[in-house]
Amino acid sequence: MARIVNMTRDALGTLTHIVGEVADLQHASSLIEWDEQVLMPPGGAELHGQMTATLRKLAHQRFTSDEVGRLLETLTPQVASLPADDDTRRTVAATARDYTKARRVPAEFVAEQARTCSAAHHAWVQARAASDFSVFEPLLTKIVDLKRQYVDFHPKEAHPYDVLMDDYEPGMRTADVNAILATLRTRQVELIRALGARPQVDDGFLRVPYDEAAVYAFATEVITTMGFDFSRGRQDKSVHPFASGIGPHDVRITTRWVPGDPLSLLFSTMHETGHALYEQGVNPAYMRSLLGGGASLGVHESQSRLWENLVGRSLPFWEHFYPALQARFPSQLGHVSLEQFYRGVNKVQPSLIRVESDEATYNLHIMLRVELEIALVEGSLSVKDLPDAWRDRMQDYLGLVPTDDASGVLQDIHWSMGSLGYFATYTLGNLISAQLWDTFGTVHPERDADMRQGQFAPLLDWLRTAVHQHGRKFEPQELVQRVTGSRIDPEPYLRYLDTKYRALYGA
Amino acid sequence: MARIVNMTRDALGTLTHIVGEVADLQHASSLIEWDEQVLMPPGGAELHGQMTATLRKLAHQRFTSDEVGRLLETLTPQVASLPADDDTRRTVAATARDYTKARRVPAEFVAEQARTCSAAHHAWVQARAASDFSVFEPLLTKIVDLKRQYVDFHPKEAHPYDVLMDDYEPGMRTADVNAILATLRTRQVELIRALGARPQVDDGFLRVPYDEAAVYAFATEVITTMGFDFSRGRQDKSVHPFASGIGPHDVRITTRWVPGDPLSLLFSTMHETGHALYEQGVNPAYMRSLLGGGASLGVHESQSRLWENLVGRSLPFWEHFYPALQARFPSQLGHVSLEQFYRGVNKVQPSLIRVESDEATYNLHIMLRVELEIALVEGSLSVKDLPDAWRDRMQDYLGLVPTDDASGVLQDIHWSMGSLGYFATYTLGNLISAQLWDTFGTVHPERDADMRQGQFAPLLDWLRTAVHQHGRKFEPQELVQRVTGSRIDPEPYLRYLDTKYRALYGA
Repeated sequence: MARIVNMTRDALGTLTHIVGEVADLQHASSLIEWDEQVLMPPGGAELHGQMTATLRKLAHQRFTSDEVGRLLETLTPQVASLPADDDTRRTVAATARDYTKARRVPAEFVAEQARTCSAAHHAWVQARAASDFSVFEPLLTKIVDLKRQYVDFHPKEAHPYDVLMDDYEPGMRTADVNAILATLRTRQVELIRALGARPQVDDGFLRVPYDEAAVYAFATEVITTMGFDFSRGRQDKSVHPFASGIGPHDVRITTRWVPGDPLSLLFSTMHETGHALYEQGVNPAYMRSLLGGGASLGVHESQSRLWENLVGRSLPFWEHFYPALQARFPSQLGHVSLEQFYRGVNKVQPSLIRVESDEATYNLHIMLRVELEIALVEGSLSVKDLPDAWRDRMQDYLGLVPTDDASGVLQDIHWSMGSLGYFATYTLGNLISAQLWDTFGTVHPERDADMRQGQFAPLLDWLRTAVHQHGRKFEPQELVQRVTGSRIDPEPYLRYLDTKYRALYGA
Repeated sequence: MARIVNMTRDALGTLTHIVGEVADLQHASSLIEWDEQVLMPPGGAELHGQMTATLRKLAHQRFTSDEVGRLLETLTPQVASLPADDDTRRTVAATARDYTKARRVPAEFVAEQARTCSAAHHAWVQARAASDFSVFEPLLTKIVDLKRQYVDFHPKEAHPYDVLMDDYEPGMRTADVNAILATLRTRQVELIRALGARPQVDDGFLRVPYDEAAVYAFATEVITTMGFDFSRGRQDKSVHPFASGIGPHDVRITTRWVPGDPLSLLFSTMHETGHALYEQGVNPAYMRSLLGGGASLGVHESQSRLWENLVGRSLPFWEHFYPALQARFPSQLGHVSLEQFYRGVNKVQPSLIRVESDEATYNLHIMLRVELEIALVEGSLSVKDLPDAWRDRMQDYLGLVPTDDASGVLQDIHWSMGSLGYFATYTLGNLISAQLWDTFGTVHPERDADMRQGQFAPLLDWLRTAVHQHGRKFEPQELVQRVTGSRIDPEPYLRYLDTKYRALYGA
């Protein structure tokens, strides 16, 4: 018995060592990509591309080596007798899961896909500039073909799209998402129509000049209060805001100034800080293992949306922060009441563009994309018919029709990167955020009173314990079940939207 | 024959590919180290350390693999028929040279040395803070032992120190350095004594407050004029100034503000820019090969010292730039004539501290260290006697005696990092800078007139052609010989010092 224990320990040590080195390579790639987005001199692009390609390739080679397979074969039966929640057992399971998936896909396919996506991204940039889908169509067709090949490398699932979604949201099935979307579709469309029938709120105070540095300083004050730890993170500017974590002790967020939309910087900073707080809260023991990082993109998005919307667009939040904002911007906001301000930052206005859309319409943008992706992957829609299908659905869901491809089917970067199966995670994030919010409100009835006092530590502490610390230890549905008592469920989010926006619009 | 050519091409392609990936790993380490020095949040230190350790280890493993050995065995005879200056021949030779050296040292020794240096660095920090050499002594003793073991891994050279120096200055021998130092010793000590007998220059205008941002802006103006390409580089702040190049298209320099020494920022920025211009000028075709980067630390230092001193502390340089500096600092410099300013920034003042020392005394600091290192490595001096030996030599060379270890034997970081054999490159850099300067003055008689006009393009163009483009293609002595017509020679530098400083001090 002692011998078996020792063998396990040796195998575990070796596996931990290899996975740690793979994590180092991946962290290094992330850091180089962060550098590229934030401060790299333009001349460095080619060399950066080569560096990250090499690092990613070596990480993949090392992780998919036969040695890892043998270690997992040794370890899997050994850890089966450990408690279901044991970290070692979960680590071995997560490693086995990723290993099995990675081994199924031939290296040649990965290289072919990388080449296609590189060409597709280039074509997409051109197509969008020219607002001409036909420029992108051949490459998107190729990407969809590759995705279907990719699906074929894996065991057959109930729906081919299951395989794609599983990469971003482990365990999530097309049937689950379809059921969720079916519930959302009717109720959100109905809500938008009801709000649209009411007088629009006035957000004219946001259409006057604001000083970028002053908004930046205010946003920094807000995220400091939220609990962002600057000794374990940074804040910078980049063209597209993002959060990048290389372990809990070095988590970096970026933001940007959007001319004509002064508070975009604040809300996107709070959004990225939501991601960052999650990363900063993961158990440091998971740092170089496959339990590091977040449970899924959906759970990650639940953290960003919770802080951006459930906190950042709530009345109690602004009861605390609005006087400070008014003091910074007396000429713009001195005459604007808290109530007017709250209504203004929650204006609902169907838009053609996803990234400009509000809380109430956002899911409809996602729904449209997910439905089209599913249709493309199952073959019921062909790429050439995509622009028409897009227009039809926009008309159905939001009552708007894009007049060109740039503000329609070409607006998102995701497909050009081969990221099919990704979009649903945005909506799942919204749903989970409301479930967590309700649960926290139940266990901590002072939730809103705390916010009015600028007290965010109880919320962060609870999220740390309930969600953050676990990293990738639990699959998303399992985690949500553990914390909220039910699986991912659209009801709390729909209830939140209905209550908030019907009150706000008197609808 | 065709078959052999094809085999060579295949082997060359494979070797190029492997060396390219090794370069990617090394570039990634450099970038992560840059990040660490410039902007990493403090929490990231541990993970950064793990990342770079893994990247360096994988680079070493990949480079020292048997496969690389076999490829070199195939290629070396094949490229022997190519012209001596052929890039392919030189690439194979440089790769073989590095491979042979790297293979001689067991991985266990490398790990042991890394551990010792890590402990030694820690001990050195403590020892310096306490100004107590005895805290550092046991670890320095261990480092010297390891260095002697390291020497033993290599074929016997005329002097054991040859092996150590070769890592920083390929081909340089202890006998060469001793001969150079013998010439410098008498003449530099004599010069310092002559200057010391003359009235001191007045640099009181540097002892008043200056605005850091204004000096920074001026320094940026200067290096832009020098030709630093910001589209292929960056400038940041760090605790210790340095230059870091990951290929010619991404070269980063840092600077710092030294309270009480306002122009330190300017001169150190020019110094680092000298390094950066070298890196930016290397043939881009060498980017991921072993011909990338500089020929040696000495040649690198020749570029930094040339721009810092031969340009930056010259009268013609200030004839152009002084009016702009005066305009920025009217209260500090409005009443100071160009002649007074020029004398002030060239004040000679023997100091206990190397990094604070002036052009005329700098080599004496280096000489002392090189002599002590040679004695330690050959065993004629024991580590415990080092502080006394240091004091004796300081008295001989500079007429000063440190009153404590912190301002004496403990002042430099190098030994704690295991960098024995490094110091001589500082002096070699000074010597080469004067040789290049003289040669450029001969081929381009308008050298000083150009500077008076703020025209630096002819100088940079010449350095690009003569030195920069070649990267590591030529060994240092070979390069200096090609460009100046003689090997590394102390005479031009001694002549430069004598002429400049005897005139300046009327000595």
